[in-house]
Amino acid sequence: MHCNNNYNTFQGLIQALENYWGCRGCIIAQPLDIEVGAATSHPITFFNAIGPEPASVAYVQVSRRPMDSRYGQNPNRLQQYYQFQVIMKPSPKNMLQLYLDSLKTLGINYIKNDICFIEDNWENPTLGAWGLGWEIWLNGMEVTQFTYFQQIGGLECKPVTGEITYGLERLALFLQGINNVYDLVWGHSALRAVTYGDLFHQNELEQSVYNCEHTDIAFLFRIFSQYEHEVENLINMEQPLVIPAYERILKAIHIFNLLDARKLISITERKNYILRIRKLAKIIAETYYMFRKNLGFPTCIKKS
Amino acid sequence: MHCNNNYNTFQGLIQALENYWGCRGCIIAQPLDIEVGAATSHPITFFNAIGPEPASVAYVQVSRRPMDSRYGQNPNRLQQYYQFQVIMKPSPKNMLQLYLDSLKTLGINYIKNDICFIEDNWENPTLGAWGLGWEIWLNGMEVTQFTYFQQIGGLECKPVTGEITYGLERLALFLQGINNVYDLVWGHSALRAVTYGDLFHQNELEQSVYNCEHTDIAFLFRIFSQYEHEVENLINMEQPLVIPAYERILKAIHIFNLLDARKLISITERKNYILRIRKLAKIIAETYYMFRKNLGFPTCIKKS
Repeated sequence: MHCNNNYNTFQGLIQALENYWGCRGCIIAQPLDIEVGAATSHPITFFNAIGPEPASVAYVQVSRRPMDSRYGQNPNRLQQYYQFQVIMKPSPKNMLQLYLDSLKTLGINYIKNDICFIEDNWENPTLGAWGLGWEIWLNGMEVTQFTYFQQIGGLECKPVTGEITYGLERLALFLQGINNVYDLVWGHSALRAVTYGDLFHQNELEQSVYNCEHTDIAFLFRIFSQYEHEVENLINMEQPLVIPAYERILKAIHIFNLLDARKLISITERKNYILRIRKLAKIIAETYYMFRKNLGFPTCIKKS
Repeated sequence: MHCNNNYNTFQGLIQALENYWGCRGCIIAQPLDIEVGAATSHPITFFNAIGPEPASVAYVQVSRRPMDSRYGQNPNRLQQYYQFQVIMKPSPKNMLQLYLDSLKTLGINYIKNDICFIEDNWENPTLGAWGLGWEIWLNGMEVTQFTYFQQIGGLECKPVTGEITYGLERLALFLQGINNVYDLVWGHSALRAVTYGDLFHQNELEQSVYNCEHTDIAFLFRIFSQYEHEVENLINMEQPLVIPAYERILKAIHIFNLLDARKLISITERKNYILRIRKLAKIIAETYYMFRKNLGFPTCIKKS
């Protein structure tokens, strides 16, 4: 019986990372059921990075980037892919060592292999977030982003949240020793191997055609403004609804990414759209901060 | 060090079920990043239930049911909850025994406890799906739905797909021996227990206010028609895009559920909306079936 829990399959890799970080005090959260461009956008990261309360969370998040549509023809670029995200606040002093040990758990000898840290300060302008950090390259391929959040929603992060974002496909390519993402073994079904391509090649093709050729542009522009308007209403209420407001920001960002994939937004308009979203993200962050402050910043974590 | 892999936590329960079904030949898939009302709606179930190719898949899916908004005040009813879904095609003869053994793995003695099978033929009218099945009750609480699909998208299922849907909150209440969903231990963060309430109580409250009081009704009606129109376009193309079309059906269904939560749809209109969606789901199912038939029904699973 094949138990699918080997890190030489894609699903086994996810399981191994969940086990590893679960044993290091991380809550294992479930992915968000709204389209996002990166794992960082998950509300559990956005809200936990605000305020002084400690938090340690890990999760998988599927991410969609319509701009990266390649009709299933590029072996390394996908409009949908998986990230594994870890956040720890305050960031522990040994966080980098914890990361390196996670590679060791996956059977990657970080002394024998070539591991590079390339300074790369991360920025997410739509969410008003930036941090100091590094790209981590493994034998010439970027496999992880390591960041210390300095700001989120325009608020200064005190204390700093440490964030590790593994690119799961990249890591799996290394672990399985192959070059084409579609050849990755996802898992084993009875006596057969199911590949990434079996699961997602047709999806990449169809979504690429949709993203690049068939979105309804007038509708996307309208719906973007509608979400923006809804967010304004939700945060200006007497009892602001920051969670539904934040979800609507994510929807607006995905709409913006779909428009971007049609190459219909000029550089000036682009800047303007980003500013419109950032303004709202900032108000949500401030509103949430005040809400928690008025509660006396409960840890959100009860003693067992 | 607390390793969070005990089935007496919510996240440990998920991990235990993934391990169990992974060892029985199921691919472990990731949740869909689009709001759905039930795990059955995940495209991996809908498309795999069509045609003769074998398939075995398990996954968690967060589900949203705006109608069940209770402002965080009901200890057992939530507008967002988690299901664990298993599908096997063709359904193995020992599928029921596999289910009972999964309970044993979770430490549930199915002889000492009172397990009831209550006939309950399942139906999802919007997706044109129905099946023969049972609710499974554990000491007086429904914890699972067991179904043999007879039709999906209006197509007869040959062979039949067996489906097991665990209600994770219900099962966790039993395993942890408590009565209030918000008191469930989700997992352990460093030295503290993080409860379901820590993670989701504020979410239940805010989303309930949003679902029941602040959705923009005129916009919801407009967007429903827009999605319907998009689906028609996508499936009437020379090369139909069934996956993006199916995702747009799911979006239309969620919009319908939001409208339903505002109690704005009469019984007649309700029937009419369901028929409109079902018609489209049927065309998607037929188009996908023909696409696979023309390919000679490849197993979608390559030999390793």
